[in-house]
Amino acid sequence: MPPPDPAELFELNENGEIPPLNQHVPFTAQYVDGASIDWLREEAAERERSNALRAQYGVRGLLLPWFDAARMWLVVILIGIGIGLTGGWLDVLVKWLGDLREGRCLHGFSYNQVTCCSGIKSGEQCDDWMTWGEFLGVRFVLAQALLHSFVYVSLAVVFAGSAAVLVKTYAPYAFHTGIPEIKAILGGYVLKAFLSPWTLLIKALGLALAVASGLSLGKEGPLVHVACCMAYLLSRFFAQFRNSEAQQRKLLAAAAAAGVSVAFGSPLGGVLFGLEELDTFANESEVMWRGFVASAVAAVSLQWVNPFGTSKLVLFQVTSGADTWRAFELIPWLTLGVIGGVLGSLLIKLNVEIALYRRNSVLNEWPILEVVGVSAITAAISYLVVFSRVQTSELVANLFQECDSTKIDYHGLCNSTAMWENVFLLLLTAALKFFLTAWTFGMMIPAGIFLPTIAIGACLGRAVGLLTQGLHRAYPTAWIFLSCPPDPSVRCVSPGFYAVIGASAMLGGVTRMTISLVVILFELTGALSHVLPIMISVMASKWVGDAIGKDGGIYAVWIAMRGYPWLPPADFQDKGDTGAQLMRPADRLVVIEDERETVADLDGLLKEHDFHGFPVVRRQQYLGFVTRDRLRSALDSLLSDDSERTKRCVFSSRGRSSITEEQIDFSGLLEEAVLQLRQEVPKELVVNMFQKMNVRQIMFTTGGKLVGMVTKSDVVSLLTCNFPHTAALGGGVQQRSWG
Amino acid sequence: MPPPDPAELFELNENGEIPPLNQHVPFTAQYVDGASIDWLREEAAERERSNALRAQYGVRGLLLPWFDAARMWLVVILIGIGIGLTGGWLDVLVKWLGDLREGRCLHGFSYNQVTCCSGIKSGEQCDDWMTWGEFLGVRFVLAQALLHSFVYVSLAVVFAGSAAVLVKTYAPYAFHTGIPEIKAILGGYVLKAFLSPWTLLIKALGLALAVASGLSLGKEGPLVHVACCMAYLLSRFFAQFRNSEAQQRKLLAAAAAAGVSVAFGSPLGGVLFGLEELDTFANESEVMWRGFVASAVAAVSLQWVNPFGTSKLVLFQVTSGADTWRAFELIPWLTLGVIGGVLGSLLIKLNVEIALYRRNSVLNEWPILEVVGVSAITAAISYLVVFSRVQTSELVANLFQECDSTKIDYHGLCNSTAMWENVFLLLLTAALKFFLTAWTFGMMIPAGIFLPTIAIGACLGRAVGLLTQGLHRAYPTAWIFLSCPPDPSVRCVSPGFYAVIGASAMLGGVTRMTISLVVILFELTGALSHVLPIMISVMASKWVGDAIGKDGGIYAVWIAMRGYPWLPPADFQDKGDTGAQLMRPADRLVVIEDERETVADLDGLLKEHDFHGFPVVRRQQYLGFVTRDRLRSALDSLLSDDSERTKRCVFSSRGRSSITEEQIDFSGLLEEAVLQLRQEVPKELVVNMFQKMNVRQIMFTTGGKLVGMVTKSDVVSLLTCNFPHTAALGGGVQQRSWG
Repeated sequence: MPPPDPAELFELNENGEIPPLNQHVPFTAQYVDGASIDWLREEAAERERSNALRAQYGVRGLLLPWFDAARMWLVVILIGIGIGLTGGWLDVLVKWLGDLREGRCLHGFSYNQVTCCSGIKSGEQCDDWMTWGEFLGVRFVLAQALLHSFVYVSLAVVFAGSAAVLVKTYAPYAFHTGIPEIKAILGGYVLKAFLSPWTLLIKALGLALAVASGLSLGKEGPLVHVACCMAYLLSRFFAQFRNSEAQQRKLLAAAAAAGVSVAFGSPLGGVLFGLEELDTFANESEVMWRGFVASAVAAVSLQWVNPFGTSKLVLFQVTSGADTWRAFELIPWLTLGVIGGVLGSLLIKLNVEIALYRRNSVLNEWPILEVVGVSAITAAISYLVVFSRVQTSELVANLFQECDSTKIDYHGLCNSTAMWENVFLLLLTAALKFFLTAWTFGMMIPAGIFLPTIAIGACLGRAVGLLTQGLHRAYPTAWIFLSCPPDPSVRCVSPGFYAVIGASAMLGGVTRMTISLVVILFELTGALSHVLPIMISVMASKWVGDAIGKDGGIYAVWIAMRGYPWLPPADFQDKGDTGAQLMRPADRLVVIEDERETVADLDGLLKEHDFHGFPVVRRQQYLGFVTRDRLRSALDSLLSDDSERTKRCVFSSRGRSSITEEQIDFSGLLEEAVLQLRQEVPKELVVNMFQKMNVRQIMFTTGGKLVGMVTKSDVVSLLTCNFPHTAALGGGVQQRSWG
Repeated sequence: MPPPDPAELFELNENGEIPPLNQHVPFTAQYVDGASIDWLREEAAERERSNALRAQYGVRGLLLPWFDAARMWLVVILIGIGIGLTGGWLDVLVKWLGDLREGRCLHGFSYNQVTCCSGIKSGEQCDDWMTWGEFLGVRFVLAQALLHSFVYVSLAVVFAGSAAVLVKTYAPYAFHTGIPEIKAILGGYVLKAFLSPWTLLIKALGLALAVASGLSLGKEGPLVHVACCMAYLLSRFFAQFRNSEAQQRKLLAAAAAAGVSVAFGSPLGGVLFGLEELDTFANESEVMWRGFVASAVAAVSLQWVNPFGTSKLVLFQVTSGADTWRAFELIPWLTLGVIGGVLGSLLIKLNVEIALYRRNSVLNEWPILEVVGVSAITAAISYLVVFSRVQTSELVANLFQECDSTKIDYHGLCNSTAMWENVFLLLLTAALKFFLTAWTFGMMIPAGIFLPTIAIGACLGRAVGLLTQGLHRAYPTAWIFLSCPPDPSVRCVSPGFYAVIGASAMLGGVTRMTISLVVILFELTGALSHVLPIMISVMASKWVGDAIGKDGGIYAVWIAMRGYPWLPPADFQDKGDTGAQLMRPADRLVVIEDERETVADLDGLLKEHDFHGFPVVRRQQYLGFVTRDRLRSALDSLLSDDSERTKRCVFSSRGRSSITEEQIDFSGLLEEAVLQLRQEVPKELVVNMFQKMNVRQIMFTTGGKLVGMVTKSDVVSLLTCNFPHTAALGGGVQQRSWG
């Protein structure tokens, strides 16, 4: 049985070599929502474009690439400025709307409490700002209280309700945090409606209303979404981005970094968020670089707007006087880490259950009513529990503060005789926020989960801090407190910092982020000297969280529930399996047989199957892979001509000479960059290849024979198979078979 | 010309399928120094090991994997503790040796100045510490000065000389920074001598001596090397690491992070250094996680040793009172960024020239004499220029300090009437350090480049800061200073912070790091509120540096000069080339023809060629790839038997039935994980594949026919081809053809 001579397969050229394929025809694919982009082809197109620019004669060949880069940096800088200004403006709007729930300014309706009283010297009473009771002249205390609570609750309902109406009517994609979708989009998913100008407008407006309504939600995730919408809008004005989905995504990654930078006042955290959570920069250092610039520019713009009047980026300044900490404090901190890990996992599980219940119950048809109801309940409960009456960010800022005789005591939190009451109140607030957050995150309203998680953690942390402080006060000479200063008037335990630790631990449990979380937290609090305890608590909480629920954090869970084709970066470990177990075997694949199918046959094939592409074989020998889009566009030009319809398509023709009259040369349609592996390759390596190389399919061949194929969707379903609710919330997102 | 039937190639089993290959035989390769490890095979071995553990019956199957993980974490934590303690101990040693150059303690010889005077209240004179003049009873001022300078210079020479003797005699690999080698090793290069216990001991001791000698060098890079040596030593005690080069490298990555953490007191910076500069964590989040833990543990240990008596990790506390900065300051800061980029590139170029000169001149034979000479010159000059007389770290700490009436004026730096003198002195110091550093980095002595670079940058930055401050003092009402507070007694420009910016810019220019550099710098200085200016200056300097010299930083340059097989992570952009241009064509490859070669033939082949492996073909059809090591071990067992020697080796046998008496089945020797690509694939993608997938070779096939092969060394030489001095310093490192 002699092996075949390659010359039988391919016409050799005069040198006895196999001639190269026909020149590759540039082809820009048009993607519809629900598709996945082909990274390798996009990059090939970008490469051709940039080579074409450099190939221009003379000065043009030097200047055009330079203009190209300059345009790109211009867009990056514009995105940074845009999101910085938007973030600042949203903060001002939220402050005004929030203050409106308590009273109004006499100068004019458009002032918030701080600007209204800005002319007043400290110590003096600010007469220009009146609560609603004062403004309407209600004198009786009871009537005042009733009026205040009524205005408080009803404005909350109005704000939240109008946000929901806006979202429902104009931009359904503007609900929720947006980060799961952005992760999917950056991975190659196509969802243009998610980035439309309408979504931008509604998300920004709705976000301000939602935050002002006092619902248990944050602005962080939605701000990232807003930043991405902006980047998408800007990218439409430049052909180099408009025509390349890959280039757009690189811009979006930079925008997301800028969004985080503005949301937390954390430029470095933004870059690291892009690096760790969005997992995009790992591919190209150039992309990280853009994120770095966008992030810095956004932070400068935000600082220029100066929404809080502090000229600082640090939102929740920690004022812990002592820069040192004691070894015994590792015990409460590790405890907080464990609690954070457990509660974080629980929060995710509860949130999933509620999302499934919402989807499958009558609530699915009344999203606005749900928002109204929850906001009313939230407002009513919050008004009763003193700590949660103010905006969440204010609560967090106060919990992070140390008690200090020069400062105003925040609701008796510094009253050392009322320790148990404070602990009870803090735990109650945490429990309330826990359930409200689990419900709110997923309603038809823009909602981030960062701030509420921080608030829950801060309450728990402060409670643990108060208990530790109480223990120290009760037994100042116990051996465990030996490292404390002997003078009891010097503070040894700083409960405010325990709140920071609690917040870190809780965030670690919910998001399972590590480094970016630590950076964000100390950029947020300015507590650089405490970076070690923050690291340790994040570590502990991630360990515990991962041990309890192998879900990869709240965003991964939502991506799985929505069924986006996103590859988790998680390390996959096989049990000795090989690619052969993962691949779809060749006999179950729809393949194109070389020289057999006519143009009309292929047209029929495309109509019958909606696969992304088809392997081309010649008597089982693998020749190449042709994508649906490219085949479609080649066929379309031929189908109108009847003489062409019956021609047989030849993919293996390497020189035109071998083409007969009844044949047509399709060899230029084959994809350049399709990987081939042996089927004995470990499954782990196959998964790894998809995670790192952004490929859409891998072919398996044995001695040249096609034995199977693995597509990205096979790998996604392999990696999400142990999550029980995969694609449980598929609704709204158009699904397409893209394998 | 009918295409071949696969059944002609392979014996089909009863189901008509190609049966799977024979069970893969686990095979642990032994690597010699100079080789490159095979990541894919190492990972396959690790997978098999962990699957074997989990496949144990009952409780053992649960406990063994757990013990495995526990051992790994134990080692990580031990490494952290070890390097934390070592770092602290080195600091104490350096302080003592450094102080010895100025005087001695009356209590005992082993006290340094601070511990000697620790009992003294502030304000009182410390009588227990005596300068050498006082101690020896020299009264005349001139004689005292002569004595001091003599002791100063001669002790410097003694310290540096003994360090050089130690390195030259006992551990030649202990010279230089070590980071280029670590980058290469983490990438897969094998260099066991570099990590030996002797190297550990000599590097640590020599480092202390070298730093104390006052040479223009830092301890940062060498500390990373010490950490890696420790990790390697520890890993030898555990079979799971001893037998796996890949597992060892994952530990080394964690150790390197811990090393940076200790060197800069920057736990987060350590993790990010691993992420960005060592480029190892991108592959597996688990590795990053270990780096995170090791880094945190190391920082805690260092804080426990508390070498500086401050209980702080922040080494160079910045005391800039104002947390805000003004827009006009962007002008001097960007200027500093540009200067940093230019000088950084120049420093690299000068350092390369000096290294080449050293290699090719008489200096090559007298390394110890060179060290002695340079240390004498350095000490003599440093003694004259007041700023450089103290240890570099002290100089930097003082340059970062703001002028403050409560503090001691450091050598008149705060004397505002002597601005021009100060600027001149600072520029002189910077210039001196510039040339000394360019010479010192590469001598036969442990030497890091971080601290001297920081010192150069800090001098320049402080000078620019003084000039800006002078300008503000001269024209306080100019429009550019409008944003300054009107009261001239309030400080508007903080020259100390300009020093930080200068240091960032210089470091950016020399190392071309970005995020990790920013994090290290503000963990180093505690200047969190100034993260934005630091980011901007690092950005500017990296841009300028990359524009001037496309070298990728000092470490990449040294890797290239030493010719290590390390793939730069740089984005490679082809000009429309394909894999066909990069590959070695099939007719120039040494291939094994299936069923033709006898055992003795293959033995001869192995003796004739020292390639890492050979493609196996069957009449040009590609069958697989067999590595030299595996073939060698298979042949060795057969060669002794004369009847086996003449058997023909069959690689394509899929069922044993087809093997005749005169044949021997070698199909189990084929590598599982060898990539195949079409030759039309863009060159960029081929390079990318090597960078991301850690493969050693890629095969190119067309319709099953082997057309060429690309190895890692081809890609390395492609990426380093525009650096003129590739492998110019090959000496000492054993080179082996590993393609």
